[in-house]
Amino acid sequence: MSYKLIYFNSKALGEPIRFLLAYGDIEYEDFRIDFLKQWPTWNKESFPFHQIPILEVDGLQMNQSLSICRFLAKRVGLVGSNDIEDYLIDSMIDNINDFRWNFAIMHYETDPSIQEIKRKELHDKTIPFYLEKLEKIAKDGNGHFALKRLTWVDVYFAGVIDYLNFMAKKDLLTNCPNLQKVVDNVLALEKIKKWVEKRPKTIS
Amino acid sequence: MSYKLIYFNSKALGEPIRFLLAYGDIEYEDFRIDFLKQWPTWNKESFPFHQIPILEVDGLQMNQSLSICRFLAKRVGLVGSNDIEDYLIDSMIDNINDFRWNFAIMHYETDPSIQEIKRKELHDKTIPFYLEKLEKIAKDGNGHFALKRLTWVDVYFAGVIDYLNFMAKKDLLTNCPNLQKVVDNVLALEKIKKWVEKRPKTIS
Repeated sequence: MSYKLIYFNSKALGEPIRFLLAYGDIEYEDFRIDFLKQWPTWNKESFPFHQIPILEVDGLQMNQSLSICRFLAKRVGLVGSNDIEDYLIDSMIDNINDFRWNFAIMHYETDPSIQEIKRKELHDKTIPFYLEKLEKIAKDGNGHFALKRLTWVDVYFAGVIDYLNFMAKKDLLTNCPNLQKVVDNVLALEKIKKWVEKRPKTIS
Repeated sequence: MSYKLIYFNSKALGEPIRFLLAYGDIEYEDFRIDFLKQWPTWNKESFPFHQIPILEVDGLQMNQSLSICRFLAKRVGLVGSNDIEDYLIDSMIDNINDFRWNFAIMHYETDPSIQEIKRKELHDKTIPFYLEKLEKIAKDGNGHFALKRLTWVDVYFAGVIDYLNFMAKKDLLTNCPNLQKVVDNVLALEKIKKWVEKRPKTIS
């Protein structure tokens, strides 16, 4: 099979996909588009909903990062072993994704005064609310979000946390030792460690 | 097994779950909380992320409507037959969910002047963009979003469209015969038809 990942020259929503590909030792072309220099004039209509990441699998253009991650998770063996277990992973993905949406709504707001209001709301309410919930879940799971073992939701979180930190303009995990443990567990995996060492250095 | 759905006395995000339960002939308690009279003083901390819908399955509290739908879709046989097919369904769910998020960001905005800006953006840009894409996909799929046959993404869309129309304050499908066909296909299913006939009448 042939795999080609099309994304910006950044971690953000592409990095969880790269982590899963690294974990599964799947060879792929890591095609990067420069957000400032190339994206404004790129032919976005060539992508299903004009967005990236796109993973091309034997020519099939896959969009939607979470669906791509779920697909890869099956291929690399990081899913549950029955429908209840898969639900437990999926729901944590959706909880984390709800959290992420709040960052995106603020970060991509083009009106500076609205953005300021959204930023305050995010820091005063949304971040404390979610971090408390997620930290407790990670603690109960002994450093895992689901099934008390490594699944693709841990890998997703470890892959996307730099992007959340970048949008928040701070290290979200400073007072969350169990969430930090989720990330550390993933980054300690031999194949992901190797990827992180060799990947292009980018700010987000 | 015992099933209990906890949601508002409305269709909204609960209705796709009710559609799937009806389709699968699954008996459940349809527990409804009045949004205006009961929800403000409800003990929301009893729910994982303080939100509903919640589906209780043999006492396990499931949150996140899409994850609940995916779980039920497996039980009632509306998923794909391999990982590529499941990806094709999942990505359409995520595309529709991105569309829905734009409605929610506008609808639940508490600052009226920001809400007005968001409403204009939604109607001028987001709705035309998504409807054109989705209509084409439904046309290519002959009235289905994926696999050219009934899957849970069709049921999800048919279940959630009233909520989107309510937030948009108009019938989104007026000029989208193929999206209307997706909905009509689902509403014509005997068990869903029976549910729609007997369900409580609510405005959204």
